[in-house]
Amino acid sequence: MKFNYPDDSTALHTDAYELSMMQTYWKQGQGNRRAVFEAFFRKMPFQNGYAVFAGLDHIIRYIKSLHFTASDIEYLRSTGQFADDFLDYLKDFKFTGSIRSFEEGDLVFNHEPILQVDAPMIEAQLVETALLNIINYQIMVATKASRIKSIVGDQPVMEFGTRRAQEFDAALWGTRAAYIGGFDATSNVRAGKLFGIPISGTHAHALVQAYRNDYDAFKAYAETHHDCVFLVDTFDTLKSGVPAAIKVAKEFGDKINFLGVRIDSGDMAYLSKQVRQLLDDAGFKDAKIFASNGLDEKTIQNLQMQGAKIDVWGIGTKLITAYDQPTLGAVYKLVAIEDDDGKMVDTIKLSNNISKMSTPGKKQVWRINDCADNKSEGDYITLADEDPREQRSLNMFNPDFPLQQKDVDDFKARPMLKDIWKDGQFVYDEPSLEETRQRRKQNLDALWDEYKRDLNPEVYPVDLSQKCYDNKLNMIHRIHEYVKTLGN
Amino acid sequence: MKFNYPDDSTALHTDAYELSMMQTYWKQGQGNRRAVFEAFFRKMPFQNGYAVFAGLDHIIRYIKSLHFTASDIEYLRSTGQFADDFLDYLKDFKFTGSIRSFEEGDLVFNHEPILQVDAPMIEAQLVETALLNIINYQIMVATKASRIKSIVGDQPVMEFGTRRAQEFDAALWGTRAAYIGGFDATSNVRAGKLFGIPISGTHAHALVQAYRNDYDAFKAYAETHHDCVFLVDTFDTLKSGVPAAIKVAKEFGDKINFLGVRIDSGDMAYLSKQVRQLLDDAGFKDAKIFASNGLDEKTIQNLQMQGAKIDVWGIGTKLITAYDQPTLGAVYKLVAIEDDDGKMVDTIKLSNNISKMSTPGKKQVWRINDCADNKSEGDYITLADEDPREQRSLNMFNPDFPLQQKDVDDFKARPMLKDIWKDGQFVYDEPSLEETRQRRKQNLDALWDEYKRDLNPEVYPVDLSQKCYDNKLNMIHRIHEYVKTLGN
Repeated sequence: MKFNYPDDSTALHTDAYELSMMQTYWKQGQGNRRAVFEAFFRKMPFQNGYAVFAGLDHIIRYIKSLHFTASDIEYLRSTGQFADDFLDYLKDFKFTGSIRSFEEGDLVFNHEPILQVDAPMIEAQLVETALLNIINYQIMVATKASRIKSIVGDQPVMEFGTRRAQEFDAALWGTRAAYIGGFDATSNVRAGKLFGIPISGTHAHALVQAYRNDYDAFKAYAETHHDCVFLVDTFDTLKSGVPAAIKVAKEFGDKINFLGVRIDSGDMAYLSKQVRQLLDDAGFKDAKIFASNGLDEKTIQNLQMQGAKIDVWGIGTKLITAYDQPTLGAVYKLVAIEDDDGKMVDTIKLSNNISKMSTPGKKQVWRINDCADNKSEGDYITLADEDPREQRSLNMFNPDFPLQQKDVDDFKARPMLKDIWKDGQFVYDEPSLEETRQRRKQNLDALWDEYKRDLNPEVYPVDLSQKCYDNKLNMIHRIHEYVKTLGN
Repeated sequence: MKFNYPDDSTALHTDAYELSMMQTYWKQGQGNRRAVFEAFFRKMPFQNGYAVFAGLDHIIRYIKSLHFTASDIEYLRSTGQFADDFLDYLKDFKFTGSIRSFEEGDLVFNHEPILQVDAPMIEAQLVETALLNIINYQIMVATKASRIKSIVGDQPVMEFGTRRAQEFDAALWGTRAAYIGGFDATSNVRAGKLFGIPISGTHAHALVQAYRNDYDAFKAYAETHHDCVFLVDTFDTLKSGVPAAIKVAKEFGDKINFLGVRIDSGDMAYLSKQVRQLLDDAGFKDAKIFASNGLDEKTIQNLQMQGAKIDVWGIGTKLITAYDQPTLGAVYKLVAIEDDDGKMVDTIKLSNNISKMSTPGKKQVWRINDCADNKSEGDYITLADEDPREQRSLNMFNPDFPLQQKDVDDFKARPMLKDIWKDGQFVYDEPSLEETRQRRKQNLDALWDEYKRDLNPEVYPVDLSQKCYDNKLNMIHRIHEYVKTLGN
């Protein structure tokens, strides 16, 4: 791009069809008709048993700053596709609706609404693209991070993927999502500044090349830093790198904090054991071995099985790009709309594929916990006006297999969609990032282990209330009847 | 993040270790030592026969705006890891070095330098992370787009992936890379504004749901837009959607430009043939069928084989996330550094894996074309002080299999790394995006078909000059000798 717009905004970070539809609604006097959209995803990411919700902070920033600048309007005018009076309306556009959402760090599951926009139709339509863009990425990274964290246990794990991320924002928001998912630090300095995530990183091969050998490079580093982790694989890990690290650590003694060494290539299982031996023999039993190089939960498990002596893990590509599944595929569907009499009517998007049909009606998701052990029995989706807390006993059944039922008696029901905006007012008390990290842990603690294993987990129940289920069946039936009349 | 920094910059969009190394260089008075880094990648993306270079425009913007703001410095100070005098130095930091690069739209291949930074070591180190972050993504999307474009031929193909992209920047820069790779339009409105890419999009299922049936929705749309593409699969494509589209098109006649219909679900091969029949029977032989739904070059080929009647393709997830390989894995290696006498000395990063060894020395890449047919014979990598144009005959050989040789006589040699910055001065005359699109086409025209097929292409020759090859062998030998002395 040759031109910069000093007043550029993210209002145009949307699909062209959103603006086309907005023009139709507005021109037809339908823009203020109230509409309820819900976002959900159909398949669990990475075939994991749970997903970790993330992205709300970016959504909040996006909505708070949402307005069309002069250059935005001028651009739209230049396309010739938009009417002047519609563009005049956009000049004063602001979001006046309501948003409810899971909180970051909450566990979420497929087929349940994770984000809900209840707003004038014209506003709810505009924000679709950005909202999906944010959660489709951040949930993937938070979930992948949580999978990795569950494998490494108490060992520290760092996010090192910025250079392999899909452009700047992915690096920045991705590492925040990784931190929510249980990571301990990041290499991305700007994420350290903006989010308060601890930053981590010492030196690259270039330092060793610049000083021509390991010893001189490590010495130079030790002279200019207190905390030292030396990267030992530039020329020869066992013959040159580690001996040089040990020599420098001995020479500097208490003048530096010799944390350990990092290996970034070669056979990690073999090398880490040899390096451990060398460090132990030299008296550095507390020095840690850091490893990085194409790692993810599968390679880490494999290295653990081989008895690799690795203490700290640096994870890049596989996490920050959600390599094995780069997007969640969440969608945003209209579930209810105001009719001419001001009454809300439920709507559905049909499909030949049953699992692709949306569930009509404005809804709430309740996490049902057993009072005895505080473990989650499943999620229970109701229409928004239902409250399972008023019931003594809950009949939970799988909407795809309605005969698969259970009755829950001694339960607590917690509403998962929280108010973020209410009629244009921001009403959410945003937690700190540390509280969000805690939230993921608490959520996980309440989940039975069989949902948490990384391979072939049990399917967590996501059930519909009877009312919600009947409503869906009725709608499908009514539309089939309508289509039948067209055939005649 | 709870706090905004009005003076936030992208200077901290870097890995922590870059700043740690910079502190070492600076503290030791080594920061101004001249260093040459080159970026390259090791494996062809998607096992394609070529890659399309993209990302330079973002790199230019990043370097032009590169400076540390007050809040950047304050954050670094707050970490306790950086010395005050080093931070004072950063306050006046600017890039004073030289950058050479392939141009956007150029074809690039593995193992050749595609970007070269020749600058004071401290500056060259800082920019590594952002440069890799940019090209590792944009090259993937431009290459994937080019693969898709080569399958659809003259049919229009649109980028529709924003909602599935990995955060905002990927959507924005990804669609630009797709346009470079041969795409014709985007749904991303902001990309239309910032880059001048044609935008495309009419309406979603929500419009049909909001108006309760296809006919009323299409009518409302036609009343408020001139160009009309109706999405016909909300309830029932053949019984409801297409008949309603035809009815509205007939009623509105010349009042609208009925471009066609879009299908977003169901069996595309079957549906498109049926829809074509319905449109033809109604007299709309020119109306186009737009298709979207998880498409990429493989599914498109398959649909073509089945005789699907699709005229325009909308591509989302698979392109914008580079789904089958989400990152290129390009690296940035130190190839030469100034010694104490001010002389440049070549450097290498060894590895147990031969193909992971960098090629030492500051280099140039020459594209060798046959004068007779103007087809590319291969790329020829020389040390920077060599000029193959001075030679009558060129002996080209594969560095991994040196016996695989050919002599080229009647050739043109074109230097591919162009000056972008020279000693801190921006010297590049940036082409328009349309010129960049042309560049890709011209590059492709000069490539034999066997390198362009999407499955099992021939390997394009990327050869080293004899001097460059000997230099690499000598370096490897010398370092092995050095490591041997350590063993004693």
